[in-house]
Amino acid sequence: MTITHRIALIGFGTVGQGLAEILVDKGDSLEQQHGVRFQIVAVSDLLKGSLYQATGLDAAALLEVVRRTGKLEEYPVNRGLFTGLDSLETIRRSNADTVVEISWTDVQTGQPAIDHVKAAFENGKNAVLTNKGPVALAYQELAGLAAAQGVQFRFEGTVMSGTPAIRLAQRALAGCTISQIQGILNGTTNYILTQMETGQSYASALAEAQRLGYAEADPTADVEGWDAAGKAVILANVLMGGDLQVAAVDRTGISKLTLADVDAARAAGERWKLIAKVWHSDGTTKASVTPTRVPLSHPLAGVGGAVNAVTYTTDLLGDVTLVGPGAGRMETGYAVLGDLLEIARE
Amino acid sequence: MTITHRIALIGFGTVGQGLAEILVDKGDSLEQQHGVRFQIVAVSDLLKGSLYQATGLDAAALLEVVRRTGKLEEYPVNRGLFTGLDSLETIRRSNADTVVEISWTDVQTGQPAIDHVKAAFENGKNAVLTNKGPVALAYQELAGLAAAQGVQFRFEGTVMSGTPAIRLAQRALAGCTISQIQGILNGTTNYILTQMETGQSYASALAEAQRLGYAEADPTADVEGWDAAGKAVILANVLMGGDLQVAAVDRTGISKLTLADVDAARAAGERWKLIAKVWHSDGTTKASVTPTRVPLSHPLAGVGGAVNAVTYTTDLLGDVTLVGPGAGRMETGYAVLGDLLEIARE
Repeated sequence: MTITHRIALIGFGTVGQGLAEILVDKGDSLEQQHGVRFQIVAVSDLLKGSLYQATGLDAAALLEVVRRTGKLEEYPVNRGLFTGLDSLETIRRSNADTVVEISWTDVQTGQPAIDHVKAAFENGKNAVLTNKGPVALAYQELAGLAAAQGVQFRFEGTVMSGTPAIRLAQRALAGCTISQIQGILNGTTNYILTQMETGQSYASALAEAQRLGYAEADPTADVEGWDAAGKAVILANVLMGGDLQVAAVDRTGISKLTLADVDAARAAGERWKLIAKVWHSDGTTKASVTPTRVPLSHPLAGVGGAVNAVTYTTDLLGDVTLVGPGAGRMETGYAVLGDLLEIARE
Repeated sequence: MTITHRIALIGFGTVGQGLAEILVDKGDSLEQQHGVRFQIVAVSDLLKGSLYQATGLDAAALLEVVRRTGKLEEYPVNRGLFTGLDSLETIRRSNADTVVEISWTDVQTGQPAIDHVKAAFENGKNAVLTNKGPVALAYQELAGLAAAQGVQFRFEGTVMSGTPAIRLAQRALAGCTISQIQGILNGTTNYILTQMETGQSYASALAEAQRLGYAEADPTADVEGWDAAGKAVILANVLMGGDLQVAAVDRTGISKLTLADVDAARAAGERWKLIAKVWHSDGTTKASVTPTRVPLSHPLAGVGGAVNAVTYTTDLLGDVTLVGPGAGRMETGYAVLGDLLEIARE
């Protein structure tokens, strides 16, 4: 027996196209193994245009037209195709079961994603997102709304892209209590630190990270720890019952680290890592992001390059560590798919 | 809303007592968070005796009487308590929803656990086990029986104890296809290899492992790779569609490794690990257990001591590695609890 799960994509950039590719490639095997067919019924992108067809759009045709023209306008016209609905209209009027919010989002305000997610819940639709802003800024409010409406709110891709850090904690470690989280949650800084281990200066390693597309022209969000702090807030609030704001994270970046620091750590059998940490203290949940010298025997010490990792300290298993990619088109596309499969299972 | 999930424990040794302790300590919080109360209705142990009470036994009293007397006989008599049912009678006649098979099992034949699991399925009961024998020997048959009866068959504790290696692959990585598995699946040999890195001979490291209780008086199953081979077969057959027997695993132990080998690896920036590997070749699934020199940058190289780890190579995420404990009373007790929570969720 197959159920059809209809999705609306709000935004059709890298992540949306990655997801569409996965659905084209693996739709049949997903149906066989999980009994569910994910059908894209709507795509609404501020720059590329907007399509809605209640009986389902053709994912391969969406990819073809966007690759060829950069827009959705030349998608083949056919009976029942609506064009031009904006994002909120798409969320309200489409027959999607789940809204996939992957538009460009302002990290300071979380908008327009927060409004998109709220509109989804108010219209009885689940929401999946991969942008950390809305979850870091408004998790408690959004989770409360979803619960009140009896719909689901999932955001695996906000931390470690598709590497299932959140599902591991919530599902696979269900029954364990997490008392501390430590992680390498930002691939750009981990890449720079790994390069510095080979003798490159901070400036040179940063320039290389920029050339490779790991770091942006303005690298502040990564190198000063803001990105990792946002992810630490998500883990704190979702997995450890916190009610933290990003500004409350004790945050230090890596931009002041020198090769002399790296050499001093090496001489002591240690290695610098930008460690995000979440713990309980005095009845509240705290978080920090700090360059930290970890011994080479530490499970996070061996995590090199743009890879991410998280260690959960639990009551029943002690430390459990998950290591995997922290970015990437297919990786983040998979983050959405994994969330959709969880929603379909419920 | 709380549902009550009734369980029968076949065997009440280390794992069963660990599980009972967890249920005593965390029963209320599990009920709050997961909406389920696990109730031990029966315990049947060949040496300690057998109790069945349809309305539920008192887990704290079970632990107290076993700790004090080594047996179950002095459990307080009360109305509705049945004593003396053997394991098969307990499975057939009790009102348990799930049979937890944690008795002593012959690794060559998988008995009596295989018969216990079959009896559970034939009587419409789910089965959870932590002993790898039955799963390594008879997974396809037992999984087929469970499916035919519409009941569940879970065995997280057979690989890496409570570290959720199987749930990670089946649930948290759902939608990914696994093309290769590499793991450190035996803690005893990893402890010995880690000690040899510090200059201890194989014989001395083995003796220390035996003193610490990591290795048995006859260490063959661990040091010659049989234990890891059984776990590799489980991962191959459960996660990669294989139909392997333990005898078909290309298996080499660590007993021939010398300090000279360890030094040679170190000089090359590498480290010996007993690596269990599963892969597809010529349309079939293959497995090996072999001492392997891995570069220090490899995610498995940093896994020291009695810790276990597994790396799944996937189509959508590349490599995802899970590191955690591979043995222990509470750890394996948790393996059962995690499986019970999955069953209760379905």
